[in-house]
Amino acid sequence: MIDLWRKHFVLSENMLEMECTNLTPEVVLKTSGHVERFTDLMVKDPKTQECFRADKLLEDAIDDLLEKNPTFDTATKEEHLRVQRQADAYSPEELDRLLVTYECLSPSGEPFSQAFPFNLMFKTSIGPEGNSVGYLRPETAQGLFVNFRRLLELNAQKMPFAAAQIGLGFRNEIAPRSGLLRVREFCMAEIEHFVNPDDKSHPNFASIKDKKLLLFGADDQLGSGKTKTLSVGEAVSTGLVNNETLGYFMARTQLYMEKIGMDPKRLRYRQHLATEMAHYAADCWDLEIKSSYGWVECVGHADRACYDLDVHAKATNTSMVATMKYETPVEIEVAKLKFNRKLIGMVFKKDARAVSTALDALAEDWKDFEPIAKALDADGKTSIDGFEVTKDMVSWAQTKKKVHEAKFTPSVIEPSFGMGRILYSLLEHSFYQRDMDEQRCVMRFNPRVAPQKCAVLPISSGPEFNVVVDEIAASLMDYDLATRVDKSTAALGRRYARSDEIGVPFAITVDFDTLSDDSVTIRERDSMVQIRLPKKDVHSVIFDIVHGRITWESCTEKYPVVQVDEGEDGDNSAPAAPKETPSKAKTVVVKTSRGSFSRPADGN
Amino acid sequence: MIDLWRKHFVLSENMLEMECTNLTPEVVLKTSGHVERFTDLMVKDPKTQECFRADKLLEDAIDDLLEKNPTFDTATKEEHLRVQRQADAYSPEELDRLLVTYECLSPSGEPFSQAFPFNLMFKTSIGPEGNSVGYLRPETAQGLFVNFRRLLELNAQKMPFAAAQIGLGFRNEIAPRSGLLRVREFCMAEIEHFVNPDDKSHPNFASIKDKKLLLFGADDQLGSGKTKTLSVGEAVSTGLVNNETLGYFMARTQLYMEKIGMDPKRLRYRQHLATEMAHYAADCWDLEIKSSYGWVECVGHADRACYDLDVHAKATNTSMVATMKYETPVEIEVAKLKFNRKLIGMVFKKDARAVSTALDALAEDWKDFEPIAKALDADGKTSIDGFEVTKDMVSWAQTKKKVHEAKFTPSVIEPSFGMGRILYSLLEHSFYQRDMDEQRCVMRFNPRVAPQKCAVLPISSGPEFNVVVDEIAASLMDYDLATRVDKSTAALGRRYARSDEIGVPFAITVDFDTLSDDSVTIRERDSMVQIRLPKKDVHSVIFDIVHGRITWESCTEKYPVVQVDEGEDGDNSAPAAPKETPSKAKTVVVKTSRGSFSRPADGN
Repeated sequence: MIDLWRKHFVLSENMLEMECTNLTPEVVLKTSGHVERFTDLMVKDPKTQECFRADKLLEDAIDDLLEKNPTFDTATKEEHLRVQRQADAYSPEELDRLLVTYECLSPSGEPFSQAFPFNLMFKTSIGPEGNSVGYLRPETAQGLFVNFRRLLELNAQKMPFAAAQIGLGFRNEIAPRSGLLRVREFCMAEIEHFVNPDDKSHPNFASIKDKKLLLFGADDQLGSGKTKTLSVGEAVSTGLVNNETLGYFMARTQLYMEKIGMDPKRLRYRQHLATEMAHYAADCWDLEIKSSYGWVECVGHADRACYDLDVHAKATNTSMVATMKYETPVEIEVAKLKFNRKLIGMVFKKDARAVSTALDALAEDWKDFEPIAKALDADGKTSIDGFEVTKDMVSWAQTKKKVHEAKFTPSVIEPSFGMGRILYSLLEHSFYQRDMDEQRCVMRFNPRVAPQKCAVLPISSGPEFNVVVDEIAASLMDYDLATRVDKSTAALGRRYARSDEIGVPFAITVDFDTLSDDSVTIRERDSMVQIRLPKKDVHSVIFDIVHGRITWESCTEKYPVVQVDEGEDGDNSAPAAPKETPSKAKTVVVKTSRGSFSRPADGN
Repeated sequence: MIDLWRKHFVLSENMLEMECTNLTPEVVLKTSGHVERFTDLMVKDPKTQECFRADKLLEDAIDDLLEKNPTFDTATKEEHLRVQRQADAYSPEELDRLLVTYECLSPSGEPFSQAFPFNLMFKTSIGPEGNSVGYLRPETAQGLFVNFRRLLELNAQKMPFAAAQIGLGFRNEIAPRSGLLRVREFCMAEIEHFVNPDDKSHPNFASIKDKKLLLFGADDQLGSGKTKTLSVGEAVSTGLVNNETLGYFMARTQLYMEKIGMDPKRLRYRQHLATEMAHYAADCWDLEIKSSYGWVECVGHADRACYDLDVHAKATNTSMVATMKYETPVEIEVAKLKFNRKLIGMVFKKDARAVSTALDALAEDWKDFEPIAKALDADGKTSIDGFEVTKDMVSWAQTKKKVHEAKFTPSVIEPSFGMGRILYSLLEHSFYQRDMDEQRCVMRFNPRVAPQKCAVLPISSGPEFNVVVDEIAASLMDYDLATRVDKSTAALGRRYARSDEIGVPFAITVDFDTLSDDSVTIRERDSMVQIRLPKKDVHSVIFDIVHGRITWESCTEKYPVVQVDEGEDGDNSAPAAPKETPSKAKTVVVKTSRGSFSRPADGN
């Protein structure tokens, strides 16, 4: 999954990739706001001091209420669900009130303590002196932001560009649970796409604009409660999704999910409510995946505007801007300043430089300088960054200047994947029972993500079979195809079932015919269809299917199809005669010493 | 590098792979001994309280001394080097004495404080209540040990087997420095090979037994100071390397290093001195790689005996044993016990079961039970696990029993790779200057590990060239080959130099001939030899070279070779006429509208 993510996003779009440290100095996370605000609201059982996440208590209480009252009318039910959907957006006071309204009591039967914020970051001390505080990063993004200048340089100053990072995030969850869904340490894959805030178009938007997504906009969440299916193109053109780049990534995420084998019918994009979203964010859409735990947020897509680079630039006093060349130079109005440096130096001493730098910055655009000019003319003084500047310190002229490029702080559009949650959802979407038989469980992993690509099974335990099994396994390994050899003496049907259970997409069987004609069968897990082919072709056929270059269907046309009875108690000594031959290629039935199977008419 | 590691070790040897958490509960690391003993010796500058690693101060002091005294005779010099080699094995008292002997003074000019142990683990608090201590793992191994039963089950109880883990380790280094060599957070790749302690042979030993390694045994370190070159087979048969499995992994490590492009002449295996090694370890060999920092430990190979599983089994009261089936059943002498359960129950109450279980365990081998029997016969009582057992509680008979299998606690043989150190060393080993020209730096990354496999360059910036460049880049990307497109207007020679500098092994050039005959050139970085081939062949040629299926040399025989003048100020408009055609294939010179190049005689 991670390998495919890297290919789907990083490689195919020429993103930069970086690995930053997990241990993060406190100053970085103070700047980003995490030290102050990366909190969940917690309540305590007043008797046991046990801690609980307040929003989750509320969500559970509403679930219970609705379950106990199946006769609620639609409007009442919808009202409760609306409260539930906003659970993590309430203030402590609102949550206190709601926990009372919904009669939430602690395990020891008393009302909970008042809700209070609990910082989710793991804190530690770095270095031997013990005076340097660090945190385990709660997300990978900050490492990319603080390295923005380096990344831009590596990209030869070209904009827009994206940088990706795959790595761990750590959050001191108050109540870890639900398997891989709420854990304290998890694999994330994040992309920071840096773009001109005045032009959030995407060069490849056309390639995905017709892709349909199931969208749950903020208005619909607060109103109808209904999702709608729209193409990304429509969603962007109607303004539901803020811009092309955001829409582009939502579509690319959908394509990734389909590529790894997620059920498209259990995917939806939920827009953040205004109350959920940070004040600086332009728009946010979560990909939610449905599993037995309900709709679970698995990928965030956030347009974070210029917030991140702005705060780090300010805190480190470092320029984090990109440059856009104009096609034709543009004339802008500026102020041309003349300083009385002696006076400024006398008055501000060591701050003199900061004052003139601040004035110079304002002078770059007459619109910014105009109020200063007016104040100095009217009052003879004004305040710049807290310094009182007087009229005798600076004189100015309003003038025009040709500029060839614009500097801007890039906006950041951030798709952020929780790989553990995606993995868990994929396990659920992949599971099925053959013929509704509890004993015949299958994981329908796509060959591209299946942890093992092939099983190799001898029909009998004789050494002459093992030699061929080992030879085929080695040729698969040589093509980096993870292979499972099962030489156990269990019936073939049982061994197929074992490999189905762990989602191995293909099983190669070495049987009696192999010894005489060097052919083997490949069985596809879901259809249970088998083809017969020369053993020397096996590794390239499997390699090409796993890498998406050919399909299994095309193989069933190229090679003869053998349908085999897989009864687990069945005869283990030879493949049964074909029951049907669904191959579209011309086939003839060939009698062999050990049974019959189909071959294409060209005798391949 | 990591990808290749996984293929070289995990995939090709069918190891299990697991990802455990970085955050580790205190109890696990108490059991392993890390909480008590994972320390470095630290001294402080008494004035500033700044901390220093005592062993590194000693090492540096000896370096200084030897540098200042180039006239030391060999014996004196060797004696100082012997002290230096043992620097991290001294006790605090020994180090205190040596720092005085070697006149080490703190930066403020005073003697250092006494050496004291400093625990290198990062500590944090897990969960909201704040009462649960955790550490960031200092190595990945412990996660595999505590999951041993699960791993054994997954391996269908078969022994021997190995489990691998690639992930981060964290150590609160007193003095991080030397780039990637001494850092606080680093990527490790560890293998735990579980094996019967009575049979440490390896099934594939024959495949590597002739591999020669440069060995620096413990005796030679304390004596001659000289390394020797031996085959692994010789090293094991003479007892220098303790056993086949340990030797097997040392050879496999060597092969991996050569595969990624490390210089074999700068690799040696240094055996741990008795003073360096834990009391339970059977043998340890570090792969050391030479760089400008000297010989640096990059991979440990340790036979840790049964220590790890024993301590965790004891601490968790869990059986961590494997089973070995005898080919023919073995008769052993046991004691057959008869308990007076009523009496035992009355005397020991809730501990009654523990007492009888302890006696049963001893009874499984008469050799273990015999002293108990003797004591009970002689004294009428004896002590079992602190309980006083009397003769009236148990009677016994010495008897024989047929057993079909033996249970044993596996030994662990652990190759442990510091990927960051290996990466750093590889950078040094890969760097060279062409013709000793400082302006022409090259990284000779092996195509298998080069971060970018190909550069694609148009000879001119016209749109007709860009179309072909994009098409070729897309076909390479489609084969997951990381590609760098350089459409800048710099001279071709300069663009080749840029891609040499970052170690891109191949450059594909789209030139004027491409537009007429769809052929392009591929330039190999180190030889600067170019071949001309149809553009449709490019991706498969590069793919096959990168995956080690064909060599560049075979391509120069299959396709015509073009030698091009790469003068950076040279003519940019067309490839120069070939200077030589070192291809072994028959070639003819073909005139084209834009110049001449060689083609194979078959007109391919």
